[in-house]
Formats: sequence, C-alpha cells, structure tokens
Amino acid sequence: MLSDFTVFVLNIIGTVSFAISGALVSIKARLDLFGVVFLGIITAFGGGIMRDILLGFEIPNIFYQSYLVIIALVTSVAVFIILYINRNNLVKLDKKISYFNNFFDAIGLGAFTVMGTEIAFTSGVYENVLLSVTLGFLTAVGGGIIRDVLANTAPFVLKKHVYALVSILGAFIYYYMRIAGLSVTLASSVVIGLVFALRLFATRYEWTLPKIKYDKQI
Amino acid sequence: MLSDFTVFVLNIIGTVSFAISGALVSIKARLDLFGVVFLGIITAFGGGIMRDILLGFEIPNIFYQSYLVIIALVTSVAVFIILYINRNNLVKLDKKISYFNNFFDAIGLGAFTVMGTEIAFTSGVYENVLLSVTLGFLTAVGGGIIRDVLANTAPFVLKKHVYALVSILGAFIYYYMRIAGLSVTLASSVVIGLVFALRLFATRYEWTLPKIKYDKQI
Amino acid sequence: MLSDFTVFVLNIIGTVSFAISGALVSIKARLDLFGVVFLGIITAFGGGIMRDILLGFEIPNIFYQSYLVIIALVTSVAVFIILYINRNNLVKLDKKISYFNNFFDAIGLGAFTVMGTEIAFTSGVYENVLLSVTLGFLTAVGGGIIRDVLANTAPFVLKKHVYALVSILGAFIYYYMRIAGLSVTLASSVVIGLVFALRLFATRYEWTLPKIKYDKQI
Repeated sequence: MLSDFTVFVLNIIGTVSFAISGALVSIKARLDLFGVVFLGIITAFGGGIMRDILLGFEIPNIFYQSYLVIIALVTSVAVFIILYINRNNLVKLDKKISYFNNFFDAIGLGAFTVMGTEIAFTSGVYENVLLSVTLGFLTAVGGGIIRDVLANTAPFVLKKHVYALVSILGAFIYYYMRIAGLSVTLASSVVIGLVFALRLFATRYEWTLPKIKYDKQI
Repeated sequence: MLSDFTVFVLNIIGTVSFAISGALVSIKARLDLFGVVFLGIITAFGGGIMRDILLGFEIPNIFYQSYLVIIALVTSVAVFIILYINRNNLVKLDKKISYFNNFFDAIGLGAFTVMGTEIAFTSGVYENVLLSVTLGFLTAVGGGIIRDVLANTAPFVLKKHVYALVSILGAFIYYYMRIAGLSVTLASSVVIGLVFALRLFATRYEWTLPKIKYDKQI
Repeated sequence: MLSDFTVFVLNIIGTVSFAISGALVSIKARLDLFGVVFLGIITAFGGGIMRDILLGFEIPNIFYQSYLVIIALVTSVAVFIILYINRNNLVKLDKKISYFNNFFDAIGLGAFTVMGTEIAFTSGVYENVLLSVTLGFLTAVGGGIIRDVLANTAPFVLKKHVYALVSILGAFIYYYMRIAGLSVTLASSVVIGLVFALRLFATRYEWTLPKIKYDKQI
C-alpha cells in the first residue's frame, strides 16, 4: 500500500519536474506555445513509452494515466505563462532559470530512474540485470533524448555525459537494494537523493570525462 | 462494405499525397534518387508504423499491404523524374512546386488523421480518448517527423505548429462524430475537408501562436 | 549445428565491426569516453532492437545475449584507448583510421544484413518478402541511423546512398538463396563477400546516384 502510494507520488514528482525542464529547454530554443507544450509532454513521457515498447506492453502505461498527461500539459503552459509575463526581464533572470532547470531536471532524473527500474520488478523481468538497468536508464533519459533530437540540438545525454552515467549508476544501486530485500520507499529515497546530489555536483564542478581532440571531421 | 472501400481509397490518397510531399522535401534538401525514394516511403508509412508499434501489433500493417509500398515508390520516382526533366527551370517553378507540396500535404494530413483515428475503432480501443486521438495524430504527423529528423532539418511539426494542432483537432472531431454514430464515409469527408481547409488557411495567412524571444541559448 | 555456430560467429563479427565503426565516428565527432562507448553500443545493437520491436518480440534478443554487449563495450573502450595513446599523431594517422573504419563497417554491414534476413526464417515470417528484406536492411543500417541522429550529423545512409542500396540488394540475394534451399553458411559467405566488395568499391570509386541541384531551400 505504502509502496503504491510512493510510486504514485514519484510519478507525479517526475512528471512535473521533466515537464518544467522540457518546457524551459523549448522556450530557450525559441519554440512557440505548441512546441513548448508538445516537448514538455514528450520530455515527461517519451522515456516511459520507449520503455513500455521495449517490454512489449500492448499499450504504453501512460494511456491509462491520462491525469499525468493533463498535469504535464498544465505545467508546461504554466511555465510558458510565467516566462511570458517576465519576457522583458529574461536576460536578468537567466541564471535563476538555469538553476531551476537543473534543480527540477535532477529531481526528475532520480524519480524516473527509480520508477523505470522498479518496473523490472513489477513486470517480473528482474532476473535480467542488463534489462532492468536499461529500463531505469531509458525511462529517465529517453524523454530528454527525443526532446533534443526534435529540437535539433545535440543530445544533452552525449554532451553532459555524467548525466547519463549518474542515471545508470542509480539504476544499478536501486536494483541491488531491491534484490537485497529493501522496500521501494527506502530504496527510492536513497537513490533519488544520490542521483540528485551527483547530478548537481557534476553540473556545479563541471566534472568531465576524457576526450580526444580530433581535428579532421569525417 | 462502403466503409471498407472508403478506407481503401483514403489509404491510397494519403499514401500518394505524403509520398509526393516527402519526395519534394527530399529533393529540396538535395538528396539523391535513393534518398528521395527512401524518404518518400518513410513519410508515407513512418507514422502508421509508429502507430502499430504503439498498439502492440505483432507486425505493422504495412507489411501486408505491399501494393501501398509500390505506390509510394513509383510516386517518389515519378516526382524525381518530373523535376529532373525540368531541372533547369526549377527556380521559375519554385512557387508552383511549393503550392503542390502544400496542397498534397494538406490532403495527406486529413486522410491519415482520419485513418489513424479509425484504427482505434477497428482495434477496439475506442473507449480511450487520449489513445484514439494520439493514434490519429501520430499516423498523420509521425512520418513527417521521421523525415525531418533524418533530413536533419528542424521538424516541421515544431515550426509549423498550427500543422500539428489541426491534426489533433481533426482527430478529436472525427472521434466524437464516430462515437455519435456517424458513418466512416460521412465523418471522414467532413474531417478531411476541415483539416485540408485549416491547413491551407494556416499557411496562407501565416497563423502563428505566441512565442517568447529568449536571447540566451542553453 | 553448423548453422548455429555460423550465426554465433557472424553475430560476434558484426558486433565488433560496428562497435569499432561507431566508436571511430564518435571520436571524430569529439564525444567523450561515455559518448564513444554509448554510440559504439548503439551502433552495434540499435538495428537489431528496431528489428525485434518491428517483429513484436516481447523483449529484444540482445537482452538475452549480454556477452555481446560486453564485447561491444570492451571494443569501444579499446578503440578509445588506442586513439588516446596516439592522440598527438591523429592527423598523420587519419587516412589509416578512415580505411579501418570503412573496412570494419563493410564487414559489419554484410554480417548484419545476413543475420537480419535470417531472422525472417527462424521466426517464420519468410513468406513475406517485403518484411524479410526490411528486417535485413534495418538490422544492418538501423544502428548507424540512430548513431548519426544522436551525433546530430546528417545520416550516413542518406548521404552514402549506395551504402543502403548494397544492404537491400544483399538482403534480396540472401533471401532468394535461402528460399532456393542453400545453407546459412553458404548463402551468408556469398552475400557477406558481395556486400563487402560492393561497399568498398562504392567508397573507392565514389559511385553516385542522380541528384537534382535545387537552389531554393524550403
């Protein structure tokens, strides 16, 4: 019961967070109201739909949770209105907006990593580690990838590498905590906190991975 | 019987229209013969394949309707040949070509919105409004999104916002006409006409939605 | 028995080849270690996952073959390390690297075209020519398309048109050799050799298809 309620709450937190982040990215990419709402919704649910297709579900879950779609829609519209009202002040507010974007994106990343990995347990494929971790990662990162491909910007996941690594790490830890018998509520609290902290540290201290300076393009 | 025939005709009209539009976009993006044919076919069937995957069909419908693939292939090749013959006159013909492109795209948009929404009824998921409308929208717009992503241009659906809105509106109206007991033939005639007219008006009068001028990129 | 072994060997050859090619493209696109490994894996398995989703498999095959994922991961990391060690010499080595990339990509193209078409026989949908050939083509070319879309470069498949045509031709020939009763080992040897040769000739002699010079962009 408690765990059902936890899942319900996490779904709403993840949806609102990703809708905010998707809407902010779309506004910065100068899309209009429709583009903002469309990409807000895609960012929130794209990963989950990819996950459900991968799992061979008849119809993706989200179509039976239309209240979540309405939440994402209202959230995106609200973000648009707030920025529209402050449209003459955006340069001054830019730092604050970036901070908000990172903050909510970090929460969404944690919540959806946990939710996606948990599906491996509720749908009975948890003996497969590779699949379980992929489900967590895809749920968390898939929506953002679709958003970036549609907005025609280089996918965030490839530029901000640590971002994806944090989600993969979180999915692994959540997976083994659940295998060890810990409850959804306990495991998800720990992992969401960890993903959130690592994600913000990575942005703040600009953690990077090795890279090769290659001068000739293909 | 009549309704089966209507579906058959709409499928052919939509396929030819979208293959023409896909081929024209590809030629303008300077792709070669293969690219033109490939994107002509993708534009025509990409949305339907995404819809069938979303519905959890074993094998997408199109693989049992290979005559449609041949129609799209022949149409794309024909468009290529006609423009190739007139290749020294294209600047002069450009306006006419754009007009043709908009015209056929508007027909295809209407036909595939209707066809996609109708699938909700034939496959028995019509109690789910959200899913039914998404099926119509995805069938109509999905092929164009894949085309734009592959041609590496900003997706049409995000720039020409009204485009997508018209399809969503059409899907809603078709859905409720069918729920109200109207026949496929009647409902589809009304909705195709409406989508066609709105799509052309939107292009002609350059209808736009509100947008925020955001000066700093992420 | 022999044929099972052939399939096993082809899978490993294709995986290693595409992981090498995916890693090289990512390094040239200046991605970091994570991006290189991520796109190496995606290039190797993206096509197969799309194929399995198209066929309506519950869970894509690759999740039951995690040794292949580990092979792709180790291969991508190895490519990164080798180029990192030689990072001050890359301009001088550029020609050699391009040659390697083409070489392995040509092997992978042949191996995965054959593997994908063979799935049509093992999963019993071989009466459908269109579907069988699409499965071979998609397995071979799908991973590269996803790689190019994510790396935000114009998809290889549309620029190097002959590339895709060679895979379609190979799938057709393999299909009819198998229908004619030839063994997997024989048919795959012939087709892989043919695809490999045509792919390299096409690059070397810069075979092209007709194209229309269109001056006005949409």
